[in-house]
Amino acid sequence: MNLSDEQLWERFQRFYSEFPSAGLAIDLSRTQLDSDYLQKMASPLQSAFAAMDQLEAGAMANPDEKRMVGHYWLRNAALAPKPEIRREIEETLAATKSFAHQVHSGAIQGQRGTFQKLLVVGIGGSALGPQFVAHALGRPGADRMNLYFFDNTDPDGMDKALVAIGPDLGRTLTVVISKSGGTKETRNGMVEAERAYREAGLDFPPHAVAVTGNGSELDKTAEKAGWLRRFPMWDWVGGRTSETSAVGLLPAALQGFDIDRLLAGASACDQLTRRHSFQENPAAQLAVAWHAIGQGRGAKDMVILPYKDRLELFSRYLQQLIMESLGKELDLSGKKVNQGIAVYGNKGSTDQHAYIQQLRDGLNNFFVTFIQVLKDRERKSMQVEPGFTTGDYLQGFYLGTRQALWEKERQSITITIDQVDAFHVGVLIALYERAVGLYASLVNINAYHQPGVEAGKKAATAILELQSEVAKHLSENSSRGFNAGEIAEALKRKGSMESIFKICQHLAANQQLAADGRNGIATRFRANS
Amino acid sequence: MNLSDEQLWERFQRFYSEFPSAGLAIDLSRTQLDSDYLQKMASPLQSAFAAMDQLEAGAMANPDEKRMVGHYWLRNAALAPKPEIRREIEETLAATKSFAHQVHSGAIQGQRGTFQKLLVVGIGGSALGPQFVAHALGRPGADRMNLYFFDNTDPDGMDKALVAIGPDLGRTLTVVISKSGGTKETRNGMVEAERAYREAGLDFPPHAVAVTGNGSELDKTAEKAGWLRRFPMWDWVGGRTSETSAVGLLPAALQGFDIDRLLAGASACDQLTRRHSFQENPAAQLAVAWHAIGQGRGAKDMVILPYKDRLELFSRYLQQLIMESLGKELDLSGKKVNQGIAVYGNKGSTDQHAYIQQLRDGLNNFFVTFIQVLKDRERKSMQVEPGFTTGDYLQGFYLGTRQALWEKERQSITITIDQVDAFHVGVLIALYERAVGLYASLVNINAYHQPGVEAGKKAATAILELQSEVAKHLSENSSRGFNAGEIAEALKRKGSMESIFKICQHLAANQQLAADGRNGIATRFRANS
Repeated sequence: MNLSDEQLWERFQRFYSEFPSAGLAIDLSRTQLDSDYLQKMASPLQSAFAAMDQLEAGAMANPDEKRMVGHYWLRNAALAPKPEIRREIEETLAATKSFAHQVHSGAIQGQRGTFQKLLVVGIGGSALGPQFVAHALGRPGADRMNLYFFDNTDPDGMDKALVAIGPDLGRTLTVVISKSGGTKETRNGMVEAERAYREAGLDFPPHAVAVTGNGSELDKTAEKAGWLRRFPMWDWVGGRTSETSAVGLLPAALQGFDIDRLLAGASACDQLTRRHSFQENPAAQLAVAWHAIGQGRGAKDMVILPYKDRLELFSRYLQQLIMESLGKELDLSGKKVNQGIAVYGNKGSTDQHAYIQQLRDGLNNFFVTFIQVLKDRERKSMQVEPGFTTGDYLQGFYLGTRQALWEKERQSITITIDQVDAFHVGVLIALYERAVGLYASLVNINAYHQPGVEAGKKAATAILELQSEVAKHLSENSSRGFNAGEIAEALKRKGSMESIFKICQHLAANQQLAADGRNGIATRFRANS
Repeated sequence: MNLSDEQLWERFQRFYSEFPSAGLAIDLSRTQLDSDYLQKMASPLQSAFAAMDQLEAGAMANPDEKRMVGHYWLRNAALAPKPEIRREIEETLAATKSFAHQVHSGAIQGQRGTFQKLLVVGIGGSALGPQFVAHALGRPGADRMNLYFFDNTDPDGMDKALVAIGPDLGRTLTVVISKSGGTKETRNGMVEAERAYREAGLDFPPHAVAVTGNGSELDKTAEKAGWLRRFPMWDWVGGRTSETSAVGLLPAALQGFDIDRLLAGASACDQLTRRHSFQENPAAQLAVAWHAIGQGRGAKDMVILPYKDRLELFSRYLQQLIMESLGKELDLSGKKVNQGIAVYGNKGSTDQHAYIQQLRDGLNNFFVTFIQVLKDRERKSMQVEPGFTTGDYLQGFYLGTRQALWEKERQSITITIDQVDAFHVGVLIALYERAVGLYASLVNINAYHQPGVEAGKKAATAILELQSEVAKHLSENSSRGFNAGEIAEALKRKGSMESIFKICQHLAANQQLAADGRNGIATRFRANS
């Protein structure tokens, strides 16, 4: 890849494409993509376009789960394959905006007055999108509502969020988001939130909203208790592609962001990424470049480096969108392929001071995606040195790093957007949704299921069942202590000694059991007296 | 690796080690480490121990930069090789605590009253440690001072922090941290902070503190302008190992964290990690396990998954510590090795909902380091279901995920700590500092320099110089517009057409130039009239 300046300029002219309708440009010039590879991918790419057309038309694009894949309809409901789907999308969007308006105007209030804070209880697809968008568009301290999360089943994490909310729980709206309505972390968060309201002398239902599938456990709970509102989720929207459903739009609208512009950006990008042409389709460009760089098997990690603080959480959002979509054991024909692309990164130039050392000098096991934002800030910049603003430096560091990596044959893609606003956040979300879908077709996998996540949940359930058995045994034999081996023997669970030890160790650390000192795996545990 | 339950229990008994003096345990049982590998590494490990002894005794352990490496002295100043170093460490620590006390008591105030907020201006090693520690130990809303950062040269990011600080700038202490005193991002942040104080009708110096090398550009600026305080940094402390210097301790003390306990934790861990024995040294265990899993060449990415919200930023901290230390082109003998280990991750069980799908089913190009925290929370937990707390679920998800990965031959290490407090944060920092140092010896590289970061900075400087030339040319020829090619020709910089285009594009987006429409690389740019 040791190219002359002239050759690099040639490549730039060829592989730099502007898409003005979306305020977007893509630059693939600093990758190994070439004519031969494009020719090789021409036919697979046409198949990917055809599959995408079918998906948008309502095909069972997620065959394992026998589901349609409809996130593209969310920003253009006229595309929905059935009138009732179109109506549901339109009604939900209208209800979202109307509810946010009522909250802002004070027509709907908490028990202590106008809602000023927003607690989102959700995990994965029900948190990463809202977190990314809040960070990208928010001005903490100046937004309509300040945002807090329960995005895990960590009790201390919840306590920390409650401390930050402070005495304002009676003016805090809690939105519980779970598509299935059965996610344990979210359910636990809801129960802890209920307790917090109760302890503050407040009722939970007049502060609570659900976003969930119709008829789910959460939906029934909310209906029975008389929560403020329930917003629907549908089985044709996956969690990781739900930002343009109520999952993402409700928190965004409540914070005061312009969700119409976010949808307009996604829609503008969708129009581009429907085109059956590598040159004219920015998502196809990304998908083919990923394929070329990673040899169609994820051989290089994807490092996401937006040179913009507001996009710092984009990599986390993309970790889910890309890794959960592409990280698959089997392809569509059932062949074992162990696909995927690892994603990480935070922001430039900050990350230059963290790990550009390794990127330039160390393992060449990655490619960088730079995200460049042309507009620096709202107000006019001062000059921090004669002729230069802080934004000029930021731009200089991006170009300098791109150059320094290229000198060492490290590849990069650059995505340029005009500015970070609701429209361009919609563009970025839609761009990657489509690129992931197209890439999945190129490597012949189902991007829309997640069969690998069940095993861990099942194993966790087994651990909790074992915990019950252990607690019962110790409670029924409270006269003395037992070590893990003895408990396992008594329970006839000799294969589970290690888990029993770890369970007891954790319970003892939280005063749910007593431990006889600290003696490693020989430690004896007993029921609390 | 298809082992029976009995074999797994055998491995657990063998590879699970508790270190009670540090409230720490390490479990390597779910890795490929075995007796043969341990035997193979026995002699290299002894060499690594010897090199570490020399480093601690004051050897030039960073030969390229001809510097000692003294971060271990910071928590046990008696180890320092010279009395003047010992004195400086002790005096700086005393000054740090005294200053924090004066700020808290109101003996030192801002122009609008007692300091309530803290703005840290720093990047890389001057931000990642303070950010990690603040997130781990802080209770936003209840800490002595609320913390904000300028950790980049993004003007909009600075504006966002200033909005969050709000009208309280006269009660905001700004700590500018730069070891070299010449880091551009930090310098720019300082200049923008100065302007913000000025615009608020305030003087900057009575709100400003510097942490920097004696005699640096920043040090001189602070001295000349009469800032509140200056705290020293030393050339024998690297940025990425500076958390136990004033860089980390000053922000921590100002927030009200117990920095003596943080140092005690680091010191307790240091005592363990000085031992010349794999069995008795937790850092040696990590280093050897990394070597075994990644075949001594970083063949697997390191995924950091603390099951604890407070440790969510540990992976970012470790990205710098590990990747900047280990990502090296040349080994100590000058041989090209392109070493490194890629690091990413956020927290469990949250990340299970993001990318465990790929970890279990997709590419097997990683190993996980689980961090388990035994203590769930400060207060007593409620039962969210009969017999189970939210913390039991968190533990269950950790064990379930570990099991689900192992079934598919994905390796993991588990680090267990008793709780997240200042002591254990010190333990974790010291543990990884030492593990990185030992691993570097095992692969024969210098862990303490960063020769690869200069290239990007130099290239950035060249970009800014080019920007000046472009601006000058357009200003001197303001009667008409020029496209990138024409500018390059006029400047006799035909090799820089691409950079010129990108510079003009950015300047035009920020009203520093005018663009004739939007026409890709053919766009003409002109000076503002």
